[in-house]
Amino acid sequence: MDIQQYMQRLGEQARQASRAMARASSSDKDKALAAIAGALRSHRNAILQANQQDLDAGRNNGLDAALLDRLELTPDRFDGMVEGLEQIIGLADPIGVITDLAYRPSGIQVGKMRVPLGVIGIIYESRPNVTVDAAALCLKSGNAAILRGGSEAINANQAIAECIREGLREAGLPDTAVQVVETTDRAAVGELISHPEFVDVIVPRGGKGLIERISNDARVPVIKHLDGNCHTYIDGQANIAKAISVAYNAKTQRYGTCNTTETLLVANAIAPQVLPELAGKYQQAGVELRGCDKARRLLTEAGITGMVEASNSDWEEEFLAPVLAVKIVDGINDAIEHINRYSSGHTEAIITENYTLARRFLTEVDSSSVMVNASTRFADGFEYGLGAEIGISTDKIHARGPVGLEGLTSQKWVVLGDGHIRL
Amino acid sequence: MDIQQYMQRLGEQARQASRAMARASSSDKDKALAAIAGALRSHRNAILQANQQDLDAGRNNGLDAALLDRLELTPDRFDGMVEGLEQIIGLADPIGVITDLAYRPSGIQVGKMRVPLGVIGIIYESRPNVTVDAAALCLKSGNAAILRGGSEAINANQAIAECIREGLREAGLPDTAVQVVETTDRAAVGELISHPEFVDVIVPRGGKGLIERISNDARVPVIKHLDGNCHTYIDGQANIAKAISVAYNAKTQRYGTCNTTETLLVANAIAPQVLPELAGKYQQAGVELRGCDKARRLLTEAGITGMVEASNSDWEEEFLAPVLAVKIVDGINDAIEHINRYSSGHTEAIITENYTLARRFLTEVDSSSVMVNASTRFADGFEYGLGAEIGISTDKIHARGPVGLEGLTSQKWVVLGDGHIRL
Repeated sequence: MDIQQYMQRLGEQARQASRAMARASSSDKDKALAAIAGALRSHRNAILQANQQDLDAGRNNGLDAALLDRLELTPDRFDGMVEGLEQIIGLADPIGVITDLAYRPSGIQVGKMRVPLGVIGIIYESRPNVTVDAAALCLKSGNAAILRGGSEAINANQAIAECIREGLREAGLPDTAVQVVETTDRAAVGELISHPEFVDVIVPRGGKGLIERISNDARVPVIKHLDGNCHTYIDGQANIAKAISVAYNAKTQRYGTCNTTETLLVANAIAPQVLPELAGKYQQAGVELRGCDKARRLLTEAGITGMVEASNSDWEEEFLAPVLAVKIVDGINDAIEHINRYSSGHTEAIITENYTLARRFLTEVDSSSVMVNASTRFADGFEYGLGAEIGISTDKIHARGPVGLEGLTSQKWVVLGDGHIRL
Repeated sequence: MDIQQYMQRLGEQARQASRAMARASSSDKDKALAAIAGALRSHRNAILQANQQDLDAGRNNGLDAALLDRLELTPDRFDGMVEGLEQIIGLADPIGVITDLAYRPSGIQVGKMRVPLGVIGIIYESRPNVTVDAAALCLKSGNAAILRGGSEAINANQAIAECIREGLREAGLPDTAVQVVETTDRAAVGELISHPEFVDVIVPRGGKGLIERISNDARVPVIKHLDGNCHTYIDGQANIAKAISVAYNAKTQRYGTCNTTETLLVANAIAPQVLPELAGKYQQAGVELRGCDKARRLLTEAGITGMVEASNSDWEEEFLAPVLAVKIVDGINDAIEHINRYSSGHTEAIITENYTLARRFLTEVDSSSVMVNASTRFADGFEYGLGAEIGISTDKIHARGPVGLEGLTSQKWVVLGDGHIRL
C-alpha cells in the first residue's frame, strides 16, 4: 500500500464529505447517530469477537496488563459506549447558531454564525470505544473525521467503522464523513498531521508522549492536553473544615485523573491547625506525602511520621498516583508565585474566606481553571455542563480547559444588507 | 551579538512582564497608553529625524518607491499614528470580563473569564506606525509584546520604542512589557517564532510571502492572514439596481485591499440585464475585465468590447489591482461550488431578493465573512464594530475574519464553591 496516496485519498474524501456535513440538518445528524447506535447493537457479537482477536494478538505480542485492559471491550464497556453515543444525540446542535446580530452605523447588520471546523483528525491509542466517541462528537458538530486508532485495536476499530458507515448511509449522509484508517503503518500518522489542505485540526487523545510527538511534528493546528499538575492552596483565612474536606477530596477522590491535586500549598499561619489532621487522613487513605522542611518539622512536632523530603522535581510532577507534594508558603504571593512557576496551567484552587484574596487568586493565577473553595476534581466537561468532552486543552489558543462540542467549531461573520455600499 | 542569547533574554523579560500586565488595572493600562502618546508628541522631531535617516539609507540601498513610501513617516502620518493610539484608550478593556457564570447541579458556579494570551510576537515590514499600533493593541489587551519590524525602519522604530518605554515607566508598568528587537539580524525572527515557552502567539503583518514563510517555520501558533480572493455573486433573483451598485462598489471602492471583490459571478438568467451596464461602468473606471466564454459572447452581442479571455489562474488570483474576473454561472449551486473551490475563504457576497437562496448562501459558503446584499468592502474590524483591528484571519482556529482586541485574549474557567467536593 502506498501510504501517501492512501492518506491523500482519505483526505480528499473527507474534505468532500465535510461540505455535506456542514449543511446537514440537526435532524439528519441525529438520525445518523441513532442509526450508528442501532448498527453497533446489531453487530455487537461481531465487534466483541473482533476485539477478542485483538486481545489474543496483543497477548501473543506480549502487551502488558494495563494495555490489555484498555484494549478490552467488555460487554459492560460496549453498552456504556453505545449509551454515550446516544447521550450525544440529546445535546444541542451548536452549528448555525447566530449571536450578537446587531445594526452598525453604516446600516448593515453584523453577527457571528457558529460553523464546523471542517475535517478533524483524531489520533488515539488502544481504547476502541474512543472510535465511537470521537466519531459521534465530530458528526454532531458538523465535521468530517479521519480517525487513527492504536494498531493493537485494528480489528475492533474496523468492525466499528463498518457500523458507522452503515449508520451514515442510512441517514443519507456520505459514508466518508467518518473514515477509520485501515493501515497500522505509522507513516499514516505522519501524513495525517502534515496536510492542512485536508485536515483542519488534530486532536490527539492519549499519553503525554504521543501528544508531545504529534505537537512537535504537526503542520496542522493541534488541540492538545499535556500535564495536569494541579494545586490546592489553603489560605491563612480558610475555613478549616472546608479546607480539610476539599483538599482531601481533591487528592483522594481519584488518583489517575488529570484534575487531581498533585501539590498542596498551606499558608504558614494556618498550617498547625490543618496540616496534622489532613496528613493523618491522607496517610490513612494510603497517600504518600512528600513535604518541604517546614512541613516535615511541623508534622514531627505533632507526632506524625512518614512524610518524606520533597525533591525539586516533586513540584513539577504529575504523579497520577497516591502521592502528594506538600509545601508551607508565607501567604498568597508565595502561593501564586509557586503555582505560576511549577503548574502545568491546568487547574488550581484556593481555600479562603477572604473576598480580596479570592478575587486576586482568580485573576492572577494563569491556569485554564481557577477555583475558590471547590475541589480541583470539578475541572471536567460534564461538571461544567458541556454535555460531552473532547478533551481538556492546556493550550491558550482556540480552546482552554475542558473542551466541549464548541471546541470543534468556529465562528464566521454574517453581514446582512439591503444594497449597502461602502462610502 | 549572540542572537540566541539576546532573544532568550527578551523572551524571559517578556514572560516576566506579562504577569504584571495580566493584573494591571484598566486605568493603569490606559494611563500608559496616554503617557506613550505624550512621549511620542514630545519626541516628534527626533522620531521624524530618525525616520529621515532610514529613508536616506533606504535610498542609498536602492529601495523601490513603493517601499520608501511605506517607510516614510510624514507629519500627517505621525499625527494619525498618535491619534490611532489615543482611540485605543477609548475602547472597552476586554480583560477580566466574566460571562455565563451559572450554577451547576453540583452546586458550584461555573463561568468564563477573559484573560490575556501572555506574550505576543509581532513581525512586520517597513511601516514604522505599526510599532505604535501593535504595542497599543497588546498593552490594552493585557499582553506583553516583542515587536520585530523591518530592518529598513530600525532607526524610527528604536526612537518610538524609547517613547513606549517612557510611557510604561510613567504608568508604573514594567518597561519590558513592549520590547522592540534592536538587531536587524534575520536570525532574530527565527528565534522569535521557535520558543513557545516565551511567546504564546505570533501575528505576522505584511505581505503574503512573509506570512507563508513564518507559518511554515513557526513552532508557536500563528494568527495569519493570507489571500483575499473575494467573490460577489449576482443571483437570478437579484434587484438589478442593488446588484449594479453593490458589485461596482465591491470592486472599485479601493483596489489594493484584501476585501475587494476579485471575481464576479453572475447567474445566467439575469446576466443580459446586468452585465452589459455593469461592464460599461467598470470599464469607465479603468477596470480590466477577464471573462468566461459566455460572458464575452454576451458582451460582444451587446456591443461592448475589451473583455479578455479569463485563464484558469484568474479564478484563483488576488489581483489587488483594477482587474476583475467575470463568470456566468447556472445558479446558486454553481456559484457556491465555484466559491468553495477557488476562494481563499475571506469574504463572499450574494445579491438576491430570494429568502431561501440568501439563507443557503450564508450557510453553505465556507468563508470568514458571508454577506447578503452588501459590498465585500465591509469586511473590516472597524465596520464590524471591533474598534481596532489586529488583522483579518484566514485561519479557522481561534479567530476567523476581522480580529479585534479579543483575538489577543483567551478565556479561562472560573469555579466558585463553598467547600464543594466531587462525589
